[in-house]
Amino acid sequence: MQNVYLSNYELNEAIDTYFERLGTINKSTEKINTWDGLGRVTAQPVYSLISSPHYNSSAMDGIATLSEKTFGASERNHIELIENKDYVVVDTGDPIPKEFDCVIMVEDLIRTGKNKVKIYNAAIPWQNIRPIGEDIVESQLIVPTNHKIRPVDIGAMIAGGVNEISVYKKPMVGIIPTGTELVEPGAPLKVGDIIDFNSRVFMSQVDEWGGIPKRYEIVKDDYDEIKSAVKRASKECDIVLINAGSSAGREDYTSSAISDLGDLIIHGVAIKPGKPVMMGIVNNKPIIGIPGYPVSAYFIMDIIAKRLINEYLSYKAQMPSTVMATLTRRVMSSLKYHEFVRMKLGYIGDKFVAAPLSRGAGATMSLVKADGVLEIPQHVEGLEAGTEVKISLMTKVSDIKNTIVCIGSHDPIIDTLSDMLHKNTGKYFLSSAHVGSMGGITALKNEETHIAPIHLLDMDTGEYNISYIKKYIPDKDICIIKCVKRIQGFMVRKENPLNIKDFTALQDKSIRFVNRQRGSGTRLLLDYNLKKLNIEPRNITGYQREEFTHLAVAAAVANDDADCGLGVYSAAILMGLDFIPVCNEEYDIAISQEYMEQPMIKELLSVLKSREFFDKLDELGGYDYSEAGKIIDVERG
Amino acid sequence: MQNVYLSNYELNEAIDTYFERLGTINKSTEKINTWDGLGRVTAQPVYSLISSPHYNSSAMDGIATLSEKTFGASERNHIELIENKDYVVVDTGDPIPKEFDCVIMVEDLIRTGKNKVKIYNAAIPWQNIRPIGEDIVESQLIVPTNHKIRPVDIGAMIAGGVNEISVYKKPMVGIIPTGTELVEPGAPLKVGDIIDFNSRVFMSQVDEWGGIPKRYEIVKDDYDEIKSAVKRASKECDIVLINAGSSAGREDYTSSAISDLGDLIIHGVAIKPGKPVMMGIVNNKPIIGIPGYPVSAYFIMDIIAKRLINEYLSYKAQMPSTVMATLTRRVMSSLKYHEFVRMKLGYIGDKFVAAPLSRGAGATMSLVKADGVLEIPQHVEGLEAGTEVKISLMTKVSDIKNTIVCIGSHDPIIDTLSDMLHKNTGKYFLSSAHVGSMGGITALKNEETHIAPIHLLDMDTGEYNISYIKKYIPDKDICIIKCVKRIQGFMVRKENPLNIKDFTALQDKSIRFVNRQRGSGTRLLLDYNLKKLNIEPRNITGYQREEFTHLAVAAAVANDDADCGLGVYSAAILMGLDFIPVCNEEYDIAISQEYMEQPMIKELLSVLKSREFFDKLDELGGYDYSEAGKIIDVERG
Repeated sequence: MQNVYLSNYELNEAIDTYFERLGTINKSTEKINTWDGLGRVTAQPVYSLISSPHYNSSAMDGIATLSEKTFGASERNHIELIENKDYVVVDTGDPIPKEFDCVIMVEDLIRTGKNKVKIYNAAIPWQNIRPIGEDIVESQLIVPTNHKIRPVDIGAMIAGGVNEISVYKKPMVGIIPTGTELVEPGAPLKVGDIIDFNSRVFMSQVDEWGGIPKRYEIVKDDYDEIKSAVKRASKECDIVLINAGSSAGREDYTSSAISDLGDLIIHGVAIKPGKPVMMGIVNNKPIIGIPGYPVSAYFIMDIIAKRLINEYLSYKAQMPSTVMATLTRRVMSSLKYHEFVRMKLGYIGDKFVAAPLSRGAGATMSLVKADGVLEIPQHVEGLEAGTEVKISLMTKVSDIKNTIVCIGSHDPIIDTLSDMLHKNTGKYFLSSAHVGSMGGITALKNEETHIAPIHLLDMDTGEYNISYIKKYIPDKDICIIKCVKRIQGFMVRKENPLNIKDFTALQDKSIRFVNRQRGSGTRLLLDYNLKKLNIEPRNITGYQREEFTHLAVAAAVANDDADCGLGVYSAAILMGLDFIPVCNEEYDIAISQEYMEQPMIKELLSVLKSREFFDKLDELGGYDYSEAGKIIDVERG
Repeated sequence: MQNVYLSNYELNEAIDTYFERLGTINKSTEKINTWDGLGRVTAQPVYSLISSPHYNSSAMDGIATLSEKTFGASERNHIELIENKDYVVVDTGDPIPKEFDCVIMVEDLIRTGKNKVKIYNAAIPWQNIRPIGEDIVESQLIVPTNHKIRPVDIGAMIAGGVNEISVYKKPMVGIIPTGTELVEPGAPLKVGDIIDFNSRVFMSQVDEWGGIPKRYEIVKDDYDEIKSAVKRASKECDIVLINAGSSAGREDYTSSAISDLGDLIIHGVAIKPGKPVMMGIVNNKPIIGIPGYPVSAYFIMDIIAKRLINEYLSYKAQMPSTVMATLTRRVMSSLKYHEFVRMKLGYIGDKFVAAPLSRGAGATMSLVKADGVLEIPQHVEGLEAGTEVKISLMTKVSDIKNTIVCIGSHDPIIDTLSDMLHKNTGKYFLSSAHVGSMGGITALKNEETHIAPIHLLDMDTGEYNISYIKKYIPDKDICIIKCVKRIQGFMVRKENPLNIKDFTALQDKSIRFVNRQRGSGTRLLLDYNLKKLNIEPRNITGYQREEFTHLAVAAAVANDDADCGLGVYSAAILMGLDFIPVCNEEYDIAISQEYMEQPMIKELLSVLKSREFFDKLDELGGYDYSEAGKIIDVERG
């Protein structure tokens, strides 16, 4: 039916095989002005051409004189010196005339006339003089070969008379987006169109790593077009990256194009994501087929394209920093692949905890949210919750320590809080995972989160949240930070075409419902009402279809994949839906008492009570914030 | 006689006072294409405008079908499906037609005819489908305000339909070099000229920190010219940096220019280096007078200019990383100033050691060599050797750990070794401090260095180096790595105009000698010969004048500051001097046995034995490398 992957190399073996075949990279050097050298890498050692200072100069403001003339001067025996006979006035940096050998600073002079001073201290030869070459001596090494130039190096090189330096040329990196389904950002979107964002990510990665990105036009899935694009790019560029077209799908012409034009050395590596990578050589240039899925692409770029650019720049990559962290959830892994798992880190109490993010290769947001990467070697089946693991960092440790971890129920206002906290403080972050109210309670109990937004109705008392905390986290001192009252209801398309009014409507098999995940407060709300009405969940079309956020449910309805779902008013309005209210509920934030004194939590509290936040709630609609920021100690009630 | 500093504010007080007066910075924002956003800072939260995927799409290559049609399929009960009736073929990313609700992947299909497949597993609704918004849901927060954009953010924003973003405008930073003595790099140099390199360093610092540097022509020390340059720059730029002209010297017009055009808020801060800084406001723009000395300028740029740029970008600076290190030498400090001391770090054994670099404000090389900064607060007199101190890092910890520390005698070939080691490995560095052979022995004894180049003649045995190690480091297992035999002699100007032939010539008072520092092998060689000839050191003109390297001695002779000095052949040749040989000596490298197995030491050994190194020695001249790389265990002899 279609091609299968040619190989399933182990990652390092594949890379070694490929780079061996590639041989020594043919790097070019160029001469540039020293002052344009920031971030460039020296191709030759830089030795100073002149000394700095290049003459003996005064280190002070004062007078240059001859030390012999000062011998015997003391507090009791002032010696008078005459300008132009015994001394000349010098400023810092001025040359010392040959006949003088020291400088007396202005603070140690007593002016006795227009051209006369008295001194009360003898001077030592060479005092307050910067001798020639004090800073840099001619012929001295300033920076070695293969040195990445910093601002201070530029200063020393120019001071050393070096105005031109030899650096490695930045490699030109060709980027060819392929795929009939690809459209440029901003083009009108049809179903089946995919916006080409990968090539723009590659461009900024290449830029960041020191290459020059050269993006080509999108190439359709046509063998001849792909072949001619690869041919052209391999002539114009030092490195060629071809995006997409490397799945095993029908449209896979890239591998044949590489084989026909040169050598396809590797096709398929036992890593996940990133498996369908191709590494080839055309026209003596490295050609990399980058998988189309953005997360696969990210890792292949990071592992292979970056290394190629570094080779051209003779720049040895730094190993990323790592931290040890405790896994909050079991992470399963395929025995067949070396897996790279994006991880969200939190610093809770005094330890790092790590939770796996979405594993999907298409999840660009998992890259935005990731703080680091957990590698699980081939032949390892997975890792249990509680395991101490090594995480390669993508974020600074200080940023992780400044992040409020928020695990629990979803509401669009969490995004608002996250934005306002960072905007107002510039320093603190709020990172949220939407696992439902019960998931939040569990995370709080297990010390995997700082805060847990929850909305859990106690059926017996009609009270929200508190009884759940007492029941599930009896041994911890927990507070409730009051947040908002919000309206839950049915989200339906505009004008409510199916005339859905209450839960009984869901019994109609032709009405497609979209549900929330188990453990979410909204799911509990549904189940509570179904039970009250004696409606069997299995009789509801779409009861099994689970989404993780109010917005995702609203999106399914807006797209006509479902006819209704349960969620908050603001999500319905954001998606242009109609809304049938069902009830009001209390959406609050549970937090361990011990974190209440942390500065970032205090900042969060002030956002919660701010006029700016209330204005945003009014804009979203459906929120009552009259108690926002009020703190209730659960123990004392 | 001239201005004195107006104030001696404590650093933080000065900054607080100034930024308070400055008030809220008037930052501008601009709209840019999302794909041009790398490194820019968001001025607004970025919410997705569309979902991604924006339609229900296949997560696999295979067929889209209706799950109901697959119910009952098993290994024993294959179900046949007909193309276009029961299914359509889909590739990864293809849309799912409305009538279907699942995808069966190609690996699970048995092709039974041109348009038929059999399946042996029932499908679950929504399996292998990426529902609309799986990655990004419309209206979801992608990145908050004040976020520095990374490549992955660009991908997610474009995927979320955001093609234009609002970011803070990069501030335009005017840089005005002032000083009648300043000349452009490359101009012919007269005595008294100073090459303007500071403004180029500022440009690259501004660039690195996210501003746009705008350098103005050099302005002479003329009040009206300076005033008009400041006036113009304050109109054209967001921040103005004026270099030099901020000493208390005659040429100090900058402070008056600022006062006359606006407000000079601070003039003088109790820090060292950096004391004569000015902070003013002209035309509502911050105007900073940066001291002329490059090291002072560096710290003022880092402390104040960087902060101003960050303000325009709403970017909160990260605190630099720090390490704890043991001071190898006492560091004295003035009670009057908060001092910033550049430090060289080494990782010796399993701990960091820190040595202060040259304290001179003019020492650009001390910035090139520095790995970090030690801050000594005002009112602290100094710190003793052995103190554990906190160092703010300028270098990566991994680079420090990959650095061979080399303390001891100087020879120009140390620069060659340093360059070749880094060039060949890309990874390892050699950093050298020139404190003489005896200084090297002490550093080795105290575990402050990995290697110590030495050339110490035992007067009794005529043997080099070994007896000194036995005597001074009796309790450590030390090796000698043989390096070179080199020729020592008198360096004199071309044609030897004063006809210097041997040590007796130094008795002539009119002959100006330039000496090496105490503890250097070359100084010991001189003293040994003077003693043998019964020449009194105090009768030698210039015996007191000490330089730290062969090159510095050669530079003094070349500049006619001295008539002769003692040093190696290669230094004389590099400086275009004549050379009168005195003796051959063995210049070797002493090292603790325990470091011999470190990979970086092994790399150094292979450089020492390489053809490339020998070729360079031949080029320099005066070296015999027949034993280079041979290892002698001092204990066994």
